[in-house]
Amino acid sequence: MSSLRVAVEPEHDPHVVGAVSDAGAELVPLDHAQILVWLGGPDGFPELPDSVEWVALSTAGIERFVDAGVLDDRRVWTNASGFYAQGCAEHALALLLAGTRQVVASARSRWAKDTVDPAVRTLRGATVVILGAGGIGRALTPMLAACGASVIAVNRSGRQVDGADLTLPASKTDEALTLADHVVLAAPDTAETRHVINDRTLALLKPHSWVVNVARGPLIDQEALYRALVGGVIAGAGLDVTDPEPPSLDDPLFSLDNVVITPHVANPAGRLTTEMAPFLAENLRRFAAGDDLISQVEVGRGY
Amino acid sequence: MSSLRVAVEPEHDPHVVGAVSDAGAELVPLDHAQILVWLGGPDGFPELPDSVEWVALSTAGIERFVDAGVLDDRRVWTNASGFYAQGCAEHALALLLAGTRQVVASARSRWAKDTVDPAVRTLRGATVVILGAGGIGRALTPMLAACGASVIAVNRSGRQVDGADLTLPASKTDEALTLADHVVLAAPDTAETRHVINDRTLALLKPHSWVVNVARGPLIDQEALYRALVGGVIAGAGLDVTDPEPPSLDDPLFSLDNVVITPHVANPAGRLTTEMAPFLAENLRRFAAGDDLISQVEVGRGY
Repeated sequence: MSSLRVAVEPEHDPHVVGAVSDAGAELVPLDHAQILVWLGGPDGFPELPDSVEWVALSTAGIERFVDAGVLDDRRVWTNASGFYAQGCAEHALALLLAGTRQVVASARSRWAKDTVDPAVRTLRGATVVILGAGGIGRALTPMLAACGASVIAVNRSGRQVDGADLTLPASKTDEALTLADHVVLAAPDTAETRHVINDRTLALLKPHSWVVNVARGPLIDQEALYRALVGGVIAGAGLDVTDPEPPSLDDPLFSLDNVVITPHVANPAGRLTTEMAPFLAENLRRFAAGDDLISQVEVGRGY
Repeated sequence: MSSLRVAVEPEHDPHVVGAVSDAGAELVPLDHAQILVWLGGPDGFPELPDSVEWVALSTAGIERFVDAGVLDDRRVWTNASGFYAQGCAEHALALLLAGTRQVVASARSRWAKDTVDPAVRTLRGATVVILGAGGIGRALTPMLAACGASVIAVNRSGRQVDGADLTLPASKTDEALTLADHVVLAAPDTAETRHVINDRTLALLKPHSWVVNVARGPLIDQEALYRALVGGVIAGAGLDVTDPEPPSLDDPLFSLDNVVITPHVANPAGRLTTEMAPFLAENLRRFAAGDDLISQVEVGRGY
């Protein structure tokens, strides 16, 4: 059996090259490749030779590739959905705890015990709803459970998420939000999920609720979120993503004490290829064996 | 069998009164009590009649009672060590994640991706040392494990802490710190633990290390901590306690971007009696049965 021919573009990366080598595949120029590992965004994406049977993208969300018309149905496409799930879950937990335990408020004040003490809440016994419970949701569920929280997972199919106390289909999102103490957004950005958090759904939450978004900015109607935060409809928001992104530095959300915005670092750029490498090596083995690939994109659906 | 006679001072609290009632005990004035449940601090602690066989204090750390000479060896004393362990552990996790995932830095800047992204670290694969691994350590260990961290527990005896990857006796604190990515302080304040974090032990840590203290301020030599933070010896500190406490509002630690200080809220005042009540009920049952009490104080040791 001849070895797989893999191109890594737009430039080589030691972790990815190591994975290619580990899988017994051969690094070749794009012209001769069966497989393209693309480490960039949609800008500069190359014209693909017919020899390319599979394109491995390195981002979890690929809506920008979809919008740019990069995907086609003449070959297999994979994204990195789930590869960064553990880190994104940890970041979601960090934002949720920083909010509920008033670390954010404390970082902006000096020993404000009279206001901070009564506002501290515990995850123990709280109900956390994960909207779009795929890889991040599966990784986050045991972390929340270790803190004593109950988890309600919401996903498209309603197929049970291991460890979640309850899994509901997306059609029952309102029911889930009504039960929520807090909400973590972990869904892809699609027509169905856009502005899933809006004036109406925010009103289903509680005055002590925190909303955390480690997925994509457009899941939240940010003007509605601002109104809810100013009006005391919910307690706060921890956002790793914004709409637009990057946000304007005079976005009014930055001026609110009950909001913390991290600059899209749930999966830090410096760790991206480290995290991707073992999944790529496994997918190369699967490709050679003719097996289904991890994180294959449903081209028509866009994720 | 006549019912236990319990006084609750300096004033009644519904959660504590409920626990007394649940245990089938009787509320009486202090003059007639076998048991005093004391919900205050050492100031105003009453002269005890000889009838009092057991005093249940409501704080986990009792060094202020010890310093005030309140404890005697003519009766049994219990503190609340361990009653608030779950909440304190959650707070420690919140401070650690807020630091390592740069939520603190992000709360004080606006989309500073160039500085924040490279500084984000993950707990997955990190080694977290818990100094003084009693109740808080036992509660924190599974939370850290759920995030993929390894836990080294350090306690007086070195007796294995369930779930910890390694437990070391306090005599091996230096060895533990040398292995640490991050440190959580959860020890009582005693002569042995005072200033356990000092210039010398800080130098055993790593430039990316965060130090979290949810125990007592004097465990840290704060001037040494300040030097280590300014000098890049460690990455940051998350403190729920200070020395002195409350701190001066112009304490230089407040001016550092890599420090977050929460105002002693790991166990918020508003939740104290809620958390204490089930332990008190259990201890009343044990007292009636002549069994050993939970969290009995070794009067000579001071905790």
